[in-house]
Amino acid sequence: MNSLEAATQRVFNFSAGPSVLPEPVLAQVARDMMCLPGVGVSILELGHRTPPFKEILEDTVARLRALLAVPADYDVFFVQGGGRLIFSVLPMNFCLPGGVGEYLVTGTWGDCAYQEAVRSEQGRRVWTGAEAGFRTIPEPGVWTSPDAAYLHYTSNETIEGVQFPADIASCLRDAPPLVCDMSSDFLSRPIDIRQYAMAYACMQKNLGPAGATVVIARREFLERASERVPGYCRLLNHATGDLMYNTPPTFCIYVANLVLRWLEGTFGELAAVERFNRQKAACVYEALLQRPELYRLHAAPECRSQMNVTFRLPTPELEKRFLDESQARGLAFLAGHRSVGGMRASLYNALPLAAAEALSDFIAGFQP
Amino acid sequence: MNSLEAATQRVFNFSAGPSVLPEPVLAQVARDMMCLPGVGVSILELGHRTPPFKEILEDTVARLRALLAVPADYDVFFVQGGGRLIFSVLPMNFCLPGGVGEYLVTGTWGDCAYQEAVRSEQGRRVWTGAEAGFRTIPEPGVWTSPDAAYLHYTSNETIEGVQFPADIASCLRDAPPLVCDMSSDFLSRPIDIRQYAMAYACMQKNLGPAGATVVIARREFLERASERVPGYCRLLNHATGDLMYNTPPTFCIYVANLVLRWLEGTFGELAAVERFNRQKAACVYEALLQRPELYRLHAAPECRSQMNVTFRLPTPELEKRFLDESQARGLAFLAGHRSVGGMRASLYNALPLAAAEALSDFIAGFQP
Repeated sequence: MNSLEAATQRVFNFSAGPSVLPEPVLAQVARDMMCLPGVGVSILELGHRTPPFKEILEDTVARLRALLAVPADYDVFFVQGGGRLIFSVLPMNFCLPGGVGEYLVTGTWGDCAYQEAVRSEQGRRVWTGAEAGFRTIPEPGVWTSPDAAYLHYTSNETIEGVQFPADIASCLRDAPPLVCDMSSDFLSRPIDIRQYAMAYACMQKNLGPAGATVVIARREFLERASERVPGYCRLLNHATGDLMYNTPPTFCIYVANLVLRWLEGTFGELAAVERFNRQKAACVYEALLQRPELYRLHAAPECRSQMNVTFRLPTPELEKRFLDESQARGLAFLAGHRSVGGMRASLYNALPLAAAEALSDFIAGFQP
Repeated sequence: MNSLEAATQRVFNFSAGPSVLPEPVLAQVARDMMCLPGVGVSILELGHRTPPFKEILEDTVARLRALLAVPADYDVFFVQGGGRLIFSVLPMNFCLPGGVGEYLVTGTWGDCAYQEAVRSEQGRRVWTGAEAGFRTIPEPGVWTSPDAAYLHYTSNETIEGVQFPADIASCLRDAPPLVCDMSSDFLSRPIDIRQYAMAYACMQKNLGPAGATVVIARREFLERASERVPGYCRLLNHATGDLMYNTPPTFCIYVANLVLRWLEGTFGELAAVERFNRQKAACVYEALLQRPELYRLHAAPECRSQMNVTFRLPTPELEKRFLDESQARGLAFLAGHRSVGGMRASLYNALPLAAAEALSDFIAGFQP
């Protein structure tokens, strides 16, 4: 199969993550896989301390800094282990003995993060949408509490499709340092990074393959971590020096670099990315809202995710037929997370408008 | 550049890791990058809970089990974070309060592991080669101590090129559970996995790209970890269920699968891999030993690594000329680790015999 044939076999990929990547990025990865131009070896075979890899790493960080206007007193770096590793190490990095981290829980992942703090008796849940089935977000201002080590929240809950409409910091007064899991809406819209003590995002939604997490954090906040914290778990260790506390996930960073170049070339700035994503989301939500007798949206209107559209049909049989027929039309991976069922259409940056339109048409035309 | 042109630009890659991979593996990765046959998306875009990825994961584990004859009471699984993550979490998983892990230190990485246990006051160093410049291994039997939580050692020290000639368990009496870092000689020779409570290896030497670590451990040993251990850090969590405590580094596992297929197809069994590696190492060591006035080998004869050949020339100027001229001949990445300098030729499984022969010729002909 040559690359042209391969391209024609591609489906529209609505997977929640790992998820769709830009075709030009995949084409370049394929083209240079055997031998990175001028280097003589594959990116998979390239030592992390060689000048060509250091250049890729530094360039990737520089592009992230530029795109997000990251201030000079913040570090930008990569760790392995996904969101789960960050959940596990937040209390040990930032809670002094007897201190607590506060958690605002709007879905499954926020709850996972909270449970890790509970394990060490360092978690305090200041709001949860669990009783309402994780369909809502809190009213502004209810969760302020200046004595905690940090306030953690999830800007977009991938499983429930519940998203804060914008940076929440403006709603907060006297809040502790804000820590935000941005895994599934990172780079999908502009954010003001100065509102956060730390923001992090696993790569496999809007940035690259699974296997790396971007962390952006104020140096002063990272320095709160004691030297007693185990080496890999101490985030400051990854932020200092040459960003190579250990061998980084070199391939993930290389792909992220290509994705960032694509993003810049295609959109220029995050405001344009947001407009594109809103266009796709509107197209899908409008089709769903046209047929309220058939489709039930999960999230409340004020917090419907622009990234993960979650909805149900009246019966499991209809849901199965919806999945089967959409799959047959080349609309793939629309099943909801196994913990909640139903349907989920993920509309990340790299999903083409044509995919959202094809899904919208299918939603409009589906015969129950 | 097409793939044939790319292949002709490839150099002989003596990098210590990330390191050389089999060309047929790279060619297949390139061919299927745009679209995994029959799946409709790239491996980079494929959800980890989809049937095609689950098949890759299960098949990879099955191949590792078969190749190493892993007994049924052992788990085989993947974690992220490299050797450093394992170093960091060993004490918290396996040392009861007041307990210690013992460390046998034959080089830089063993010392790194030990220092992590020191941090939590749970490390006891039972032998070190530091005073002798990490050139030697201990006499059999000196390091036994049945009261420790485990005895950790490094089967091959990548930086110093110091390798235990075979499984050490036969030299031990009443030893605590053995934990072995096999990162840089994993799959390079047969081992008896039953001698270990736990063996682990980061992928980027003999198995795949950087970003994943294989762990093989007795279930009973893993179960010693308390539920108070933070989620990602508790190794048992990665071993149970469907081996997806969180999103695994899918691409690394996919490449490892291809490498295992290549290994089976090319060698059949690890004894044949070992013969091939011994042939390459002999070829390089013999050339070095022919000219003792020019080349000084780092490691003592009984522990010279079959994977990483470390040597010096009489002056820094000659070492620089050696590196420059070898590089010009397409023999790449022969510089020693920045912490020790000198020369290092890594001869991992995927390095062709022709590369070792070319290096041997260069060593023989180099004019000081």
